[in-house]
Amino acid sequence: MSATRFTYLGPEGTFTEAALRTLPEAATRELVPMVSVPAALDAVRAGEAAAALVPIENSVEGGVTATLDELAAGEPLMIYREVLLPIAFALLVRPGTTLAGIKTVTGHPVAQPQVRNWLRAHLPDALWESAASNADGARLVQEGRYDAAFAGEFAAATYGLEPLVTEIHDAENAETRFVLVGRPARPSAPTGADKTSVVIWMGEDHPGALLELLQEFAVRGVNLMLIQSRPTGAGIGNYCFAVDAEGHIADRRVGEALMGLKRICPKVRFLGSYPRAGVARQDVRPLRAGTSDAEFTAASDWLARCQDGRTDI
Amino acid sequence: MSATRFTYLGPEGTFTEAALRTLPEAATRELVPMVSVPAALDAVRAGEAAAALVPIENSVEGGVTATLDELAAGEPLMIYREVLLPIAFALLVRPGTTLAGIKTVTGHPVAQPQVRNWLRAHLPDALWESAASNADGARLVQEGRYDAAFAGEFAAATYGLEPLVTEIHDAENAETRFVLVGRPARPSAPTGADKTSVVIWMGEDHPGALLELLQEFAVRGVNLMLIQSRPTGAGIGNYCFAVDAEGHIADRRVGEALMGLKRICPKVRFLGSYPRAGVARQDVRPLRAGTSDAEFTAASDWLARCQDGRTDI
Amino acid sequence: MSATRFTYLGPEGTFTEAALRTLPEAATRELVPMVSVPAALDAVRAGEAAAALVPIENSVEGGVTATLDELAAGEPLMIYREVLLPIAFALLVRPGTTLAGIKTVTGHPVAQPQVRNWLRAHLPDALWESAASNADGARLVQEGRYDAAFAGEFAAATYGLEPLVTEIHDAENAETRFVLVGRPARPSAPTGADKTSVVIWMGEDHPGALLELLQEFAVRGVNLMLIQSRPTGAGIGNYCFAVDAEGHIADRRVGEALMGLKRICPKVRFLGSYPRAGVARQDVRPLRAGTSDAEFTAASDWLARCQDGRTDI
Amino acid sequence: MSATRFTYLGPEGTFTEAALRTLPEAATRELVPMVSVPAALDAVRAGEAAAALVPIENSVEGGVTATLDELAAGEPLMIYREVLLPIAFALLVRPGTTLAGIKTVTGHPVAQPQVRNWLRAHLPDALWESAASNADGARLVQEGRYDAAFAGEFAAATYGLEPLVTEIHDAENAETRFVLVGRPARPSAPTGADKTSVVIWMGEDHPGALLELLQEFAVRGVNLMLIQSRPTGAGIGNYCFAVDAEGHIADRRVGEALMGLKRICPKVRFLGSYPRAGVARQDVRPLRAGTSDAEFTAASDWLARCQDGRTDI
Repeated sequence: MSATRFTYLGPEGTFTEAALRTLPEAATRELVPMVSVPAALDAVRAGEAAAALVPIENSVEGGVTATLDELAAGEPLMIYREVLLPIAFALLVRPGTTLAGIKTVTGHPVAQPQVRNWLRAHLPDALWESAASNADGARLVQEGRYDAAFAGEFAAATYGLEPLVTEIHDAENAETRFVLVGRPARPSAPTGADKTSVVIWMGEDHPGALLELLQEFAVRGVNLMLIQSRPTGAGIGNYCFAVDAEGHIADRRVGEALMGLKRICPKVRFLGSYPRAGVARQDVRPLRAGTSDAEFTAASDWLARCQDGRTDI
Repeated sequence: MSATRFTYLGPEGTFTEAALRTLPEAATRELVPMVSVPAALDAVRAGEAAAALVPIENSVEGGVTATLDELAAGEPLMIYREVLLPIAFALLVRPGTTLAGIKTVTGHPVAQPQVRNWLRAHLPDALWESAASNADGARLVQEGRYDAAFAGEFAAATYGLEPLVTEIHDAENAETRFVLVGRPARPSAPTGADKTSVVIWMGEDHPGALLELLQEFAVRGVNLMLIQSRPTGAGIGNYCFAVDAEGHIADRRVGEALMGLKRICPKVRFLGSYPRAGVARQDVRPLRAGTSDAEFTAASDWLARCQDGRTDI
Repeated sequence: MSATRFTYLGPEGTFTEAALRTLPEAATRELVPMVSVPAALDAVRAGEAAAALVPIENSVEGGVTATLDELAAGEPLMIYREVLLPIAFALLVRPGTTLAGIKTVTGHPVAQPQVRNWLRAHLPDALWESAASNADGARLVQEGRYDAAFAGEFAAATYGLEPLVTEIHDAENAETRFVLVGRPARPSAPTGADKTSVVIWMGEDHPGALLELLQEFAVRGVNLMLIQSRPTGAGIGNYCFAVDAEGHIADRRVGEALMGLKRICPKVRFLGSYPRAGVARQDVRPLRAGTSDAEFTAASDWLARCQDGRTDI
Repeated sequence: MSATRFTYLGPEGTFTEAALRTLPEAATRELVPMVSVPAALDAVRAGEAAAALVPIENSVEGGVTATLDELAAGEPLMIYREVLLPIAFALLVRPGTTLAGIKTVTGHPVAQPQVRNWLRAHLPDALWESAASNADGARLVQEGRYDAAFAGEFAAATYGLEPLVTEIHDAENAETRFVLVGRPARPSAPTGADKTSVVIWMGEDHPGALLELLQEFAVRGVNLMLIQSRPTGAGIGNYCFAVDAEGHIADRRVGEALMGLKRICPKVRFLGSYPRAGVARQDVRPLRAGTSDAEFTAASDWLARCQDGRTDI
């Protein structure tokens, strides 16, 4: 039954699985690895799974653009949760292998820039070849095709390997953001530390369009946390923008900004309002003066009085 | 009874009286000249007159700032009509006077720059002295104190003078805008060619405040027709702005812009929505895409569907 | 000889004369009252005076718009100094007059709103009539035409009157700004607390023009201190803007903003860069990051390196 | 010798090679395929190649983010040319294979979404597995591991395969943009149809920073053609932006915008000014009024006159 099943970007042993296992609701579900982000999401669209966990930002799995493009196109889906996972690699080898014995290494292509400095320092002569995923790289080491693979430490057991070195990451603070995606439904109630995701299509050949889009948010005091351009598929120079904004669609300032976008842009797709991972309500940036729900309501009341001839002040 | 009485900036024979007489509703009222704009408006506030006609823009009567300051302060009033009057002066003299016989001329101080070039060309040696109003200047000619006065041609008869020269105006297209002001009530319905007037107070010492104010209008596609800074009386550097915007408070784009101002500014005073003088509905500048009432309604509907989990597109 | 002569808005005994006498350079000049702002400035244009002091902002003399319009039109002039003068009125009477004996009062029309509340409280039944200037009002009291005049206390002696009440001003902090105007020449060197004045003409019927004008300043971090719209004389709806900006034309950020205006506006007239009155260098608002001369120079150097193929970072 | 050698993103038979062969200057060089974008660019940095051709936008090779990140980090490089290549896939098979006989297909992961609809229509039951590149997929078909591979038709001969179906592309107008990258040097002269690329780092946690960045371009009338956010590696929420702007660094409007960015952003990297591919000079969007070099020069001259006291108009 679909309600008991969550899909995720597989194979088993990827960072996505590790992220999914941090969610309490995952404990009681059947977790099904899928070969790709589209496959994981199509299972949700088809009603074969209740939700899918997929990477969406700064991922080492290469999932970002695939996820954004999938959410932007096809039958609508909605984001209900986000998960942040610190990313550190382990160098997985067959038992007995030493650093000196490593001539070839593999891993997902996106992992390579994240371990490049480490490789230069510790394995300057090893040859790198890419694998389809970090977990797939581990499998290829198991099969003897490569001497070592970069993957999550948690993947070692699955493939009968051992972590020779752990906590490898060139950049401090490397982390990946994952989203739990389901079919459209009413968003959960605002928590006070929320995020709203939308995809916005620009009109053709309008050089100031992005500036106008940003002003719809800025004039209502809505801060943006992410703006990511994506090709629309209609040729070079045609973009849509995936935007994450602070706040919840139920917040008046966010709702008014979304309506503004809806009016000036050819197409806007609402991807959900959901709690921000890792941010407590008290750590949210204070609202700009004049943008709270109370101030929106007061201004509506004032407008009604003006229209009614009861001018105050 | 107040409902039968309209006040106006007097004395009799001013351009304001001429403007008032162009209004059909003036035909059945008692028209009472007042010594000043504040006096004309205070009669309305006190219930002694139903409305007052006063100059508000580019006037030759010097009324602009007095009118703006009166509308901005004190008990609220509202604008219901505007009247545009082309301004051309006549040189009024006692019967028998010739150009060669004119040694002294008078008129309202604001008239002087409007006839300066004409004076230089035709009466280079005449001495100018200011009068309290153009009509008062005519009276002083009648009394023999000056040889000639600049005033409206219509003032000649009142003071027993004759127009020696007419249609004098240095600038082409000189005209004055007058407004009919009453106590606050529900504005008349939109005509499709409307104007909305507000006075907006800036926060103290916020250099970008005016830019933000303009953006509240711009982001909703509301064009401004006039913006006039006025001191608030709290010392040099403290301003409020009188703004005329295209559209009616009942237009969604105008209403949302006004609410935006209300939220970010310490004080906003609504001065009315009323038909534009001299502009037919078909001559109004087309709305920017995305700012019609229909588009506002469609965006509201879309937002409601999103909040309800019925994401389309 | 013109170099020894300063004109000012007369007559003797006005606030303008009081402001002029605060300037050290006035001590050694012949100070000549003129009947109007245009007359005072035309004397400078004609080479008959080295400079003229005229009110420019929030004046009780009614000089503001006359001054702005004169500076905007005709042969160019330039502002070299500004003077701020606190404004308080005295009620001048013939010796022996008491409050109870005052039936008629006079003063400049612009003085009236500034003493209105005082009049209502202390002389509710007195009749107000306007005079051509405050000093002229004093003269009319001397001649017996009115019982009392509002004017500067310093005007009492000139007209053989005595100040019955002093320090009258409805608004706290009432003050007038005067400017010393001469023929165009190289501005004095920056002091670190400077102001730049320009008049900017808008293109016809371009609703967003004012927003663009403000953005030319904002994008370079130049704060505006005053923006005043003035009709251009080409009919209702045609404006130019008189703008005072923080900083000196020799400051790179100000120079770049002025050039930006010059490119997008049909006409820009530079009215001068001069020291701010009443503001010490240490009290000037700090510059926005990235707008100092040093940062402008560093950016120019960087651009030259880029154009030269010496890309750093 | 390095001057005779161009590297490119290999292996042989990729779209990148096809793009490189469209450049006249490639005809006389040794063309060397490299295993990755970093490898191709590092060869240039090391002086082992004169230039490298790599995909930068909307690529089917997955090169975009790798290229952007490489250009943004490490030793500076500069873009000298761009190449646009229409992208259409061929389905390559071993001679004799028919559609009915295809059970497994491969290709680069980025190719998959571009042929997804075609697959659904024509090979609904075939199993997709990803390869490291399209060319590598072809090699795996040659080796018998898969039945068919999506790749450029030109890759067939290299791997002894034949194109069973050609011109496969779900989206109309699919194309990839490639750039020819070398060590920093003086950019080639403006052609009138140029493009300027920069990478801009945002200050931390400044929600309006992107809006300000766009305004630096907008206020000078510089149109943007691409804006792409990239993580800086300092954790979720830290971005830099790769921007392509219309015009050449030698154009005054572009130079001033770049200096503006340099002043307000922590870091700006100039990536080059180069001719736009596929756009003739006469097809370039007309400049906004006030942004031509002639207008910049006229404004500079005017400013100099103002500073010199020679105020005109």
